This record gives sequence, structure tokens and C-alpha cells, in this order.
Amino acid sequence: MHTDLVAALDIGGTKIAGALVDGHGRILLRAQRATPAQEDGESVMRAVEETLGELTDSPLWGRAGALGIGSAGPVDASTGTVSPVNVPGWRDYPLVRRVREAAGGLPVELIGDGVAITAAEHWQGAARGHDNALCMVVSTGVGGGLVLNGQLHAGPTGNAGHIGHISVDLDGDPCPCGARGCVERIASGPNIARRALENGWRPGPDGDTSAAAVADAARAGDPVAVASFARAAQALAAGIAATATLVEIDIAVIGGGVGKAGDVLFEPLRKALADYATLSFVQRLTIVPAQMGTDAGLVGAAAAALAKRTDTAAVV
Amino acid sequence: MHTDLVAALDIGGTKIAGALVDGHGRILLRAQRATPAQEDGESVMRAVEETLGELTDSPLWGRAGALGIGSAGPVDASTGTVSPVNVPGWRDYPLVRRVREAAGGLPVELIGDGVAITAAEHWQGAARGHDNALCMVVSTGVGGGLVLNGQLHAGPTGNAGHIGHISVDLDGDPCPCGARGCVERIASGPNIARRALENGWRPGPDGDTSAAAVADAARAGDPVAVASFARAAQALAAGIAATATLVEIDIAVIGGGVGKAGDVLFEPLRKALADYATLSFVQRLTIVPAQMGTDAGLVGAAAAALAKRTDTAAVV
Repeated sequence: MHTDLVAALDIGGTKIAGALVDGHGRILLRAQRATPAQEDGESVMRAVEETLGELTDSPLWGRAGALGIGSAGPVDASTGTVSPVNVPGWRDYPLVRRVREAAGGLPVELIGDGVAITAAEHWQGAARGHDNALCMVVSTGVGGGLVLNGQLHAGPTGNAGHIGHISVDLDGDPCPCGARGCVERIASGPNIARRALENGWRPGPDGDTSAAAVADAARAGDPVAVASFARAAQALAAGIAATATLVEIDIAVIGGGVGKAGDVLFEPLRKALADYATLSFVQRLTIVPAQMGTDAGLVGAAAAALAKRTDTAAVV
Repeated sequence: MHTDLVAALDIGGTKIAGALVDGHGRILLRAQRATPAQEDGESVMRAVEETLGELTDSPLWGRAGALGIGSAGPVDASTGTVSPVNVPGWRDYPLVRRVREAAGGLPVELIGDGVAITAAEHWQGAARGHDNALCMVVSTGVGGGLVLNGQLHAGPTGNAGHIGHISVDLDGDPCPCGARGCVERIASGPNIARRALENGWRPGPDGDTSAAAVADAARAGDPVAVASFARAAQALAAGIAATATLVEIDIAVIGGGVGKAGDVLFEPLRKALADYATLSFVQRLTIVPAQMGTDAGLVGAAAAALAKRTDTAAVV
């Protein structure tokens, strides 16, 4: 049979999404379950199997030639296992084997969620046509992925691009990861809100203390809110400049909730980038907002599956 | 004619070296000139041409199938030009065209000197057999290069791996590059010596205030000297951990004058690495001393030329 589709799974701490996707990145069928994140590993796997079951039950299933998984990390593509921070029931969980069994033996490709979003932006979004790109998600955490030499650079374990946990402040505040001064520790939404509150910003009558509320205040000119975003922008700029200096990228794409803050983030970010991206070969680097929406994880997992299908043409 | 050799040029601020190298990395013929670094660009080029002339005059020259250049940076492989910081007469200097003319039209490959040393360590030295490696030179400056997926990752302009100029201290001391808190600003030899002197260390009767003298003092237990090396190690560790977190590497190779300090550097470095390389997929990273000696630049340029020759098999 002609296998012109791929299956995709996007596994996060809140939801598990599945889809059948065509060669143009269009989603033909989708399924979704809430992630029972606090239950045991088998219960979580059951939610995956139910999601997948809606796909395998479809008459379209026979056209699927491979399956891609983008999962909350850390993942280990070399062993096919995952240990998502927010899913304690899964530690070195053999997700690839279990999904392959549930998917009738299709070839399965596993990547981290930051890598998946990068694959989506490169295939269909803001990084299209760029051979060397960094794509980031700035929200509750800070994640990312890399395209190098025109190819997704997942790394041997599928975790490359973890820009949220590089230290840009080696004597800085301890990060839950164990290091200090990580980009995420300074630039994530919760840290933008925390810093604003610590420095005297107070929420409006609705009591909203989210980063989005701080962004609103910054837009209205509140100096503490502006300063908190400027500090986040500085950390993001140092991290983006470090990435460009290490591997040469010409574009950085920023998505996620904080990425949606607009000029409140992007203006100080572009200004700070000029302070840190100083060498000649990184000065042309541009920063743009992400274009993919909430389907980025699914579309990126599909892109990884398509690459897998091409690698293993015999399967097709 | 069978072209089983390649030509190599190693261009630095002090000397210009040339060689004919075989497919096993053995140097069959070498030539060298001092770099007239403070003279005009044509005078510098003349020194390159004289070096190259000793190679083209040899009966072995006819067996050379390509020529590799490792040059002090920044370089721009996309335009074939170089602008070495320490050679002011060369700014956007068309080195590739000039060398190609002097070398009778051989295909020419240009890479930065950090990339060249990485190619050498991967081919013949401490990174042999590693598909994902960072190689560094820690001396007057801090440079480096990357091997990713088994291939040298030079980047579009040949400058990838510039770990010396990533910021690990975003509010830190200004660096001559224009940024702040760069790895080089903390960990280079001159900065190790400066910090020791600023904190009260005094040289012996010979008046030697080099990083090597500070290393001797650290070995003898001088606490200020020990602390200066520990701070350099912390910055190097943060930079190496950032690189591993971004692209996934399993080994970091450290050469250069400061790299020769031995345990005085490597002990605090391995300790600090555990503080910054915290995510599961970077915890197995090892740090080892470089194995290649002063010929690393030539051997690495030869490795790049060999890759070029393979890419353009028609030339052979």
C-alpha cells in the first residue's frame, strides 16, 4: 500500500495528542487525552494507547508509513526511553517499544519536545528556508532545538537545543536543574513574574500575577514590569548569542506564552542581542516570533517521522 | 597523476606554516615563515607565497590533490576571506583566491584555527572515535571547534566552536570583543595571571608573571594562585556544559598553554563541570587533555583538505 501519511504523537505533562499527517504537514485526523501525570506509568501508557487507538481504527491508518513522537524530556532516543520531569511514573520508560507494539510495528522516531517544535518551524513556520536556526519555546520553562546544515540536529539522545539550561550567570541563582543562572531561571514566565513581584510590582484587582499580567503592566509603562522583561531579554540574548557563536545560526525563532508578549519582549531582546552577539559572523542574526500554533508538537513529530521514513525507504 | 597527498597552511599572528601531508596525517615536507603581522597585507601575502613556494618547488607537489588553510580568525569561508585580529593588514582579505592562484588552481578549503585544531584531534588525537566532541585551545585566547554526528562542524563561515566568546557571566567584566563575561575574559592565560596579581599573588625572583608561573605557584599550594585557576575552571566548565547542553557532546578536549597546566586546571575543571552539566544527557561528558602538538593546525588543515578532495572526487 502507498504510505503517504505519517502518525504523530505529542506527549506533554498536560495532554497527549495524536494525529495522522500528510506530506504537506496537514493534519487529517486528530485524537487527544488528558495526561494522568500523577498516576502510575501504566495508566499514562493507557492514555497513549487510547489516543493511538483512535488513529489505528481509522481507514486512513493503512497509509501511515512511520510514527514520530515528540515528548516532554529528558528523552533518550538511543535507548527509546523517556523520563519526563512532570510525569513521575515514567522513568527510563520504554516508550518507543510500547508505541511500536501498539502501532503494529511501524518504525518509530523519538525526539524531545523542543526538537519537535523546531522541526515544525523549519518545515512549515518561521525557520522555513533557513539551514541554521535555533527555535525556542519561552513559557513555564524555556526549551529549544536546532537546525544545522539544513537538518534537524537532535543529538544522539534527542535532547540537543536545551537552551533553557545553559548558564549565562555562573554565580547566579540556583536552578532546579542543579546548576546556577540558567536561561530558564531568569527568562521563564514564572521567573519574570517572581522578579516583578519581588521588586514591588503589584497585580491589578483581578489578582493575576502571571507573566502575561506583567507584560500588560510593562506595556502600560510600569518600570518594574519593564525591568523584569528587560532582564529576561538579557538572559535570552546571552543564550541566543552563545548558540550562534558556538554553531553559527542566522535566525532565532521564539514561541511559547512569553514569546507572545510582543514588543515588550522583542524590543529589549533585539537590543540586548547586539550587546552579546559581537563577533562578525553572528552579527546578522535575526530574531522573529514563532509562526506555528498549538499543533507545532504534532507537526514536528510528523516531520521527524517523515525523515525516518526517508531514511528507511525499504519500509515504504 | 595519483593525488595521495594534500597541502596545508597554518596561518597565525606569529608564524605561517605549510606542509605536504599524506592520508595518514604524516607530514612529508614542511616550510615556515615568520608572519610580518604589522606590515601591509601584500607583505603578509608574500610570506604565505614564499611558504607555499617551498611546497610547489618539491617533486612531491604533483601528488597534492587539494589545499587546506587553517587561519587565525575571524575567517569567512563563504566569501573566502580572512580578517585576523592580530594581522591588521588583512581585513576581508581574499586569501582563498590568492592561495588558489599561487597553488596552480588546486581546490582550497578555508577554516578557522580552532576548527583546524579540532579536525586534527578528531583525526589523529584525543577525540578520535568520538562522533560528538568539543576541542578547545586555552592559551593567550580561548578558541575551539566542534565535531557533530562524526563530521567537523565548521558552520557556513568556518567559525563555529568559538567557545571563548560565549558569555557565562552576563553582568561580568567587559571583553575586548564587545560582550561581557566571556569564557576567554575569565579563563585565558593572561586573565588567570591578571586575577592572581590583582588578588595579591607575587611572582618569584625571576619576575615571571605568566599563567605558567601562576600554575607553578598553585601546584606549590599558593591559595591565590589556586583560586585563580579555580575561577578559570568554573568559566570553562560553564562553557563546556553549555555546549554539551546545546548540541550533545560526549568529550571535551583541552589543549593550549593553559591546558598544559595539568591537575591544577583539570581537577577543579572536572569538579566544576559536575556543577553545571546537570541534565541526564550531559552527565557522561568527559574532559581530557589534547594529544596533538604544535602541528595540530597543519594536520587539521590537511584533514579539511582531504574532506574537500573527497567531496570533489572529479578533481582527483
